[in-house]
Amino acid sequence: MFDFTEQPHRRYNPLQDEWVLVSPQRAKRPWQGQQEKPQPDERPAYDPTCYLCPGNKRTSGEVNPQYEHQFVFQNDFSALLPDGETGTFEEGGLLKAVAETGRCRVICFSPKHNLTLPEMEISEVRRVVDLWTEQFRELGADPTINYVQIFENKGFIMGCSNPHPHGQIWSERTVPDLPAKESRAQKAYFEQHGRTLLSAYLELELKDKTRLVIENDTWVVLVPFWAVWPFETLVLPRRAVQDLTQLTDAERDGLADILHQLTVRYDNLFEISFPYSAGFHQRPTDGQEYPEWHLHMHFLPPLLRSATVKKFMVGYELLANAQRDITAEQAAERLRALPAVHYKQQEA
Amino acid sequence: MFDFTEQPHRRYNPLQDEWVLVSPQRAKRPWQGQQEKPQPDERPAYDPTCYLCPGNKRTSGEVNPQYEHQFVFQNDFSALLPDGETGTFEEGGLLKAVAETGRCRVICFSPKHNLTLPEMEISEVRRVVDLWTEQFRELGADPTINYVQIFENKGFIMGCSNPHPHGQIWSERTVPDLPAKESRAQKAYFEQHGRTLLSAYLELELKDKTRLVIENDTWVVLVPFWAVWPFETLVLPRRAVQDLTQLTDAERDGLADILHQLTVRYDNLFEISFPYSAGFHQRPTDGQEYPEWHLHMHFLPPLLRSATVKKFMVGYELLANAQRDITAEQAAERLRALPAVHYKQQEA
Ligand SMILES: O=P(O)(O)O[C@H]1O[C@H](CO)[C@@H](O)[C@H](O)[C@H]1O
Ligand SMILES: O=P(O)(O)O[C@H]1O[C@H](CO)[C@@H](O)[C@H](O)[C@H]1O
Repeated sequence: MFDFTEQPHRRYNPLQDEWVLVSPQRAKRPWQGQQEKPQPDERPAYDPTCYLCPGNKRTSGEVNPQYEHQFVFQNDFSALLPDGETGTFEEGGLLKAVAETGRCRVICFSPKHNLTLPEMEISEVRRVVDLWTEQFRELGADPTINYVQIFENKGFIMGCSNPHPHGQIWSERTVPDLPAKESRAQKAYFEQHGRTLLSAYLELELKDKTRLVIENDTWVVLVPFWAVWPFETLVLPRRAVQDLTQLTDAERDGLADILHQLTVRYDNLFEISFPYSAGFHQRPTDGQEYPEWHLHMHFLPPLLRSATVKKFMVGYELLANAQRDITAEQAAERLRALPAVHYKQQEA
Repeated sequence: MFDFTEQPHRRYNPLQDEWVLVSPQRAKRPWQGQQEKPQPDERPAYDPTCYLCPGNKRTSGEVNPQYEHQFVFQNDFSALLPDGETGTFEEGGLLKAVAETGRCRVICFSPKHNLTLPEMEISEVRRVVDLWTEQFRELGADPTINYVQIFENKGFIMGCSNPHPHGQIWSERTVPDLPAKESRAQKAYFEQHGRTLLSAYLELELKDKTRLVIENDTWVVLVPFWAVWPFETLVLPRRAVQDLTQLTDAERDGLADILHQLTVRYDNLFEISFPYSAGFHQRPTDGQEYPEWHLHMHFLPPLLRSATVKKFMVGYELLANAQRDITAEQAAERLRALPAVHYKQQEA
């Protein structure tokens, strides 16, 4: 048998029906390429020039309220708009376009400009969970919105233009490509096995343990067997629920707790405010039944070796196939070994 | 009917069976996020510390020959290795891995450290075309290699660790995910219409003209209707060939010419050495017939507004769907309008 830790191999991603090339031997490669500038991490609690701080004016001219917890507003530069002509364009069977509508929102996680999820009180993270849940319910109830994508881009390196703690929601008429793929894979599995793909997967991982990162009573965080980004994780509820609105009170608490634990470890990995894109995948909101859907969250962090060296998804990855160097098991081991207390608190 | 230039819409990519969300109204969004540091563009013709320059020593200890044109060698940190145990791992139907073998090579395009494709003589670019062709033939003839990916990562921003002009080849036993998808789409089209998908597509574009960038007798460059990256282009031979070895002498000349023309325009766009990942898609080399395959090249450049502002493929893009702001037609128009002479030559 070949050795996972030494030899190039391909792993299958059953959730997205894709493969990733794993080249563990390449982790020894020296890096002479671009170094990222670590984002400065000293910020005031209130920044008069920040368009997300309470009481400040945004580009649209609107003034933010003096919010004390969270604050949601319509994205001033929405990629999707609620109104517009509908219509389809088609030519020669090869050029096809369809008008798309939707709503984009921004969620400030805290009034404090200098906080992030790992540095916020767990009770405040729990309020963010509640807000995500309410937003999913509200937007999903709109008959023109069939999918709600909740996500966070954290860090300048992830295209985030403002360090004020915030996330986004893009919701729209059409189910986007990736959730649609996950929908198909989960449906096929559910029809064949009578349970969700991710329940079966979680059971395997809880037995094997090598890819587990952290757990609590209601949630598990693991590096998926098929992870693409170096320290990618999957956040899974132990119980198969289709969306946030189905979580019990205890499960919402559990989600706040596990998010806090995970992001603290991420910050501790390179002792910086750890950049990532993260987001939920949930059932479409078109009113149909989705017993096959198992709510989960993906964390996709770009850093590879240090605060300044990221994994570049370029030539081979863009043209041929997803590729990684360190294995999922090695990444999980490193994340597990990190202290549970935030490095800034340790110093104090 | 909805207006392409004003309103969010989705476009279909028939080659990869995917969609892209286009949000033209968002091009007006101000950018307050990360600025890239433009790569310094003054280099000596020979750099004693460069591991790709003629006569220099590489990390492996090997010494490069005093090459006068191009130079190919095995990648010192290959992601794929020619030998190794074969084998398959499977658990619970959800964890699947397969050992993978292959060969990775590096191609220096020129002995001159300070050149790039747009600044090289066309006769030298033609030599690069010949070398790619020979490499495809040689690697493809290996019975353990069923797919050959030729590509170039240009610029530090594209994870390229050395500015010496060079590209790479990763060749392997398995057809990677993206070419496999293109293979399926092209096969389905060919079986239904008796001609290649890209021949039919090219015909539509030559009639429409709005997405054309440059042409010569044998090749056409266009911004595909379904482009994802802001200034993405597709380089297409007018004649449907399956791989580089089938090109005539005139078509090889034409390829050298069109690559030179395209990369000059790219450099002229922001008057910098323009970063991109680019590569060929060709038929698999498993010895089967692929009449449906139409050789082509993708150019995937990351810059959006200027030399320092790139398009971030992050939260929504990584979790939900490809997304772009300026339309394919707007991008093509800008590229078409650029001077055909390199900006450095204009100044002289
Ligand atoms: O092979 P290089 O130049 O060391 O590495 C570069 O290209 C590879 C192939 O696209 C990527 O996997 C790496 O992330 C990138 O840094
Ligand atoms: O919406 P923002 O923060 O302006 O923009 C950021 O997130 C978006 C959604 O992932 C991306 O399309 C942009 O490229 C990125 O810069």
